[in-house]
Parts: sequence; C-alpha cells; structure tokens
Amino acid sequence: MKATIAIDIGGTQMRAAAYPIDSLEPLKVNRIPTQGTRLSPEERLSKLIESVWPEKADVLAIGAAAPGPLNPATGVVLSAPNIPKWENFELQQYIEKKFNTPAQIGNDANLAALGEWKFGAGRGHHHLIYLTISTGIGGGVIVDDRLLVGANGLAGELGHVTVSPGGPYCSCGRRGHLEAVASGPSIVRWVKEELERGMPSKLLSAKPLTPKKIAQAAHEGDELAQAAFERAGTFIGRAIVDFLHIFNPTAVIIGGGVSQVGELLFAPIREALPQYVFGPKYLEDLQILKAALGDDVGLMGALALTRDMLST
Amino acid sequence: MKATIAIDIGGTQMRAAAYPIDSLEPLKVNRIPTQGTRLSPEERLSKLIESVWPEKADVLAIGAAAPGPLNPATGVVLSAPNIPKWENFELQQYIEKKFNTPAQIGNDANLAALGEWKFGAGRGHHHLIYLTISTGIGGGVIVDDRLLVGANGLAGELGHVTVSPGGPYCSCGRRGHLEAVASGPSIVRWVKEELERGMPSKLLSAKPLTPKKIAQAAHEGDELAQAAFERAGTFIGRAIVDFLHIFNPTAVIIGGGVSQVGELLFAPIREALPQYVFGPKYLEDLQILKAALGDDVGLMGALALTRDMLST
Repeated sequence: MKATIAIDIGGTQMRAAAYPIDSLEPLKVNRIPTQGTRLSPEERLSKLIESVWPEKADVLAIGAAAPGPLNPATGVVLSAPNIPKWENFELQQYIEKKFNTPAQIGNDANLAALGEWKFGAGRGHHHLIYLTISTGIGGGVIVDDRLLVGANGLAGELGHVTVSPGGPYCSCGRRGHLEAVASGPSIVRWVKEELERGMPSKLLSAKPLTPKKIAQAAHEGDELAQAAFERAGTFIGRAIVDFLHIFNPTAVIIGGGVSQVGELLFAPIREALPQYVFGPKYLEDLQILKAALGDDVGLMGALALTRDMLST
Repeated sequence: MKATIAIDIGGTQMRAAAYPIDSLEPLKVNRIPTQGTRLSPEERLSKLIESVWPEKADVLAIGAAAPGPLNPATGVVLSAPNIPKWENFELQQYIEKKFNTPAQIGNDANLAALGEWKFGAGRGHHHLIYLTISTGIGGGVIVDDRLLVGANGLAGELGHVTVSPGGPYCSCGRRGHLEAVASGPSIVRWVKEELERGMPSKLLSAKPLTPKKIAQAAHEGDELAQAAFERAGTFIGRAIVDFLHIFNPTAVIIGGGVSQVGELLFAPIREALPQYVFGPKYLEDLQILKAALGDDVGLMGALALTRDMLST
C-alpha cells in the first residue's frame, strides 16, 4: 500500500496522521503537545511522525502545516508563534533528512484554504477565499485551482489588510487591520471598552471575558454581545468586498473558533456585501460558506499538499 | 509570414496594429475615433482591423483590450464607458465571425498588467501588481506568471478597494475607494476643497483646474499642489501595502497619466511602505517601478494576449 503523512503543527499541539493515497480514512493518527521539557520541538515532531508511520505502507510524501511566516519554496520557517527556536528553521529539510522522504511545508491558514478547497466546503470551486476567525485572522486564496503563495510564500495574509485606518493596534504592531477589529481578542477588547463606558450587559460579571462567553450571551439575547458580533461581521463583510473586487471568487469560506457563533456573525457579513460591493455581478455566483473541516482543517490541508506532491 | 493583430479600444479612440509573431515591430498601425456619426463602434472597429490587416501574412489571432467590466472566458463586454451600445456585447464572437480568426478580449487594465509583465517594466518577475493612476484607477495582477482574472473576469479592480471608510464618493457610487482619493479627478477635487477653505496657492487662478496644472504647480514649488500628490501617494502606498500582504509580489508597477508627475507621487508611495507593512520580508525583494510602455500599454497588452493564444 502507498501512503502519505500529514502534519499539523500548532503552537500548543502537533497532530499527525498517515493516509492511504486514495482514501481519507487515516491508517494512524496521533497528537502530542508542541512543547516539552526534554526534547526540542523538532525532536518531538520526529517522534510524532514515527508514531504514525505505517508498518505496511510505503510513505511517498510528508506534508506539514506550520504557523507563522514560512517559505514553501525553500522549506524554511521564518518564525513560529510559541516556538521561539524555529527562527529561520529548515523544517522541510529536517523532515526529509530524518525520514528520507520528500516533504513540503505550508502556512497553516494557506493550507487550510487548500484543504477546504480539495476536501471541504470549497469542492468544485476554482476561485475561493478562505478566512479563519480565531485568536488571529488568517487567510488563504485559491486562484484558478492553485493556492496563492506569492514570491516568498507570504501571500494570503488577509487578516492584515487595513479596514479601520488609525484604528486599534493589531497583534502585528500595525493599526486598524481586520484582525485588530474582528478576531476573538479584538471582540473581547471592544466589549470591555463598551462595559467600561457603562453599556448594560450580563457580561459585566463575566471574568475573564472570552469570545465563548460573549457568544453565549449573544445567543441568550444580550444586546451588547450581539452588537459585538454584528460589528465584527460588518468589518469582515467590508474586507470580503475588497477581496471580491480583487479576486472575483465564487466562494468565501469562513472558519475558525469565532465563526462557531453562526448567524450572529454570518448575518452582518452577508448584509455588508450588497451594501459595499461595486457591481452586482460580483455577488451573482458567490456563496458565503461555513468551513466544513473543523479542527481537522490543518491536517486535511497538509494531506492536500501531499496529494499535490504526488500529482506533479 | 505569420502575424497577430492587437487592438486597444478606448472610450475616445481605438488603435490597432499587426505584428509578426516573433517581433515587436508592427507591420501596420492605425487609429480612429471610437465614436462616429455614420457607423456603430463595432463597425468602426471592423474598418480599423481591415486597415491594419497585413497583405502578405497569415493572421493567426486577434486580441483586444476593452474598457469596462468584461468576461474574457465568454468574450462578452458587460458594459463599456462611453460606448453605451456595448451592453452585454459579444465582442469576441463579433470579431471572430467578421474575420474568421480566433479572438480573445481582456479588460484594459488587466491587459496592461500583462503587457508590462511580458514586454515592459515587469519582465522577469513572476508575481507583480500593476496600477494605472489616471481618470480612474485600474489594476492588474500577475500571480505565478499568470494574469489574475477571477471566476467571471472581474478580478483585479484594485482601484475599488476601500482605503478611507466613509470617505469621498467614488465614480462607482461607493465611498472611500482608492480611486475616490487618488485618481486625477479626486486630486483635483481635493485641491478645489482646499482652495475653498482658503489655502494659499497659485492654483487659485487656474480655471479649469486639471491634474496637469497641479503637477506643474507642484514642480514649481507650490505647497498645496505638492501636498495634493503627497496625500494621493500616501493613499496609494497604503493600498499597496494591503496588496503586498495579499499577493507578496516582487514588483509594483505604476503607470497612467497621473504617475507622470514622478517623484512627487512616487516618494510618498515609497515612504508609506515601511511605515505600514506588517513585516520587513515583504519589502526585501520588492521593486516599485514606473510603467515602461506609456501609451502603447493597451496595444502591447493585447499583443501579449495574442502571443498567449498561440502558445497554448
């Protein structure tokens, strides 16, 4: 049997799975914390890969989704949040040497787009935008059936476009980015500010305040909590309009923890589109979709990468 | 000899030229006004094509750059500024039937990007952004050696991204677009407003006020005129930063009449980049370039389109 191995490297945990080349049923799966006291992250990754290595299959390719800026062409991770030692780390080469198997790496949000396109909500679309709304806001773009990576693999940073010039500071240090007004922590920050301004809400007693608690309060009819998601959704919708003018896709797929709140976020997104779009043609064939792959999106993106490796 | 014919259809004039398939030296060139009293625009176009048809060459392909939204996949012009009759007009099919020759059409700014990439300032780059700053602001993007057209050919509308939410109205009816703050007419509008506010300037006596007069006054040291280009350049630079985060290109090419003012516009563009970019890696391999093809960019883009037709 022939197989490939997919890896999803997060700041807190790493997951890996081996798949036959013609099936989405994994042969083996495993996960471990990214950080440990004894071994380095790359040594822990090695152990993890060994643990899912199938005994009775040839492994033809290994694909890894990793956080932070990286260059898929050179295989180098420039830096990785929560893995301080991975500064200009040759991740692809490390895996290839260790396992004597071709490997490729990709930015996690970019590969999530690839995964949703190949196996999830985006199947059948040739042009799509993927956004993950979570602690940060990441993105990925499929243009004409190909993942947009850019000259050095840094493309698709859709959370770092300016939607509110001079607005709140972003995690990246710049101001007014989409991530700075619509990510989970940005929603929390806005609710805190409104509470401090004296806005009434049941969230006043919620300590610590989290996106999940705001979502629950919103579902229970709390107006401030609902306004928080409406505000975030409107910003996301306005950013999507820019992406429509830039990419003219047929699907926008929205995933990530914050998107779990559902219609409270999706309704203002959909409402913003006709309000801001510059021609109705952009909306005619457009679908706004919930991501389908959930927590598996990183693994499935890495799997999609290995399938691409085999087909080229 | 084998040849192709390139056409550049503008709102005021149409140009056409026949080129050998291995040379940029035209065999024949001609131009006519787009509008006339006796013949329809498409009949005038027909005459123009006939006038450049080479006697001693086989014409293998015809490519046409046309203004306004169009679908290169179906060959249909959805609408064209200044050519009101071209509403859902099957331009590609019209040319193909009339001349029994394969034809393709493309949006003028998109094809200008293709032309600059293949024959102009963008040669050798695999990922580039092209912006034309003129009466409007148009754009085109090369991603991995291919023109970005999107699902229905409507991609690359880089002038219609929002850089100033709630800002001035755009020609498209929306607000705060790049075109609404940095195109020629937008620069004129801003100068007029400043003059009305009592700002001192030699432009007070310039009637009618034009981008050209503002450029001349700026070159002569007029502070208001200089501030007008600095403001426009800063907006353009901020939009480019978003495009860097989205596309990670190695070149941004800026053309169009307003860009002729040179450093007065390019300096604030360049200054904005490090100020707003979210990581220095985006600037390391980046070149900000003046367009090289001038008035020929539409023809050269259409020529590039015909060369693509022959190679696929």
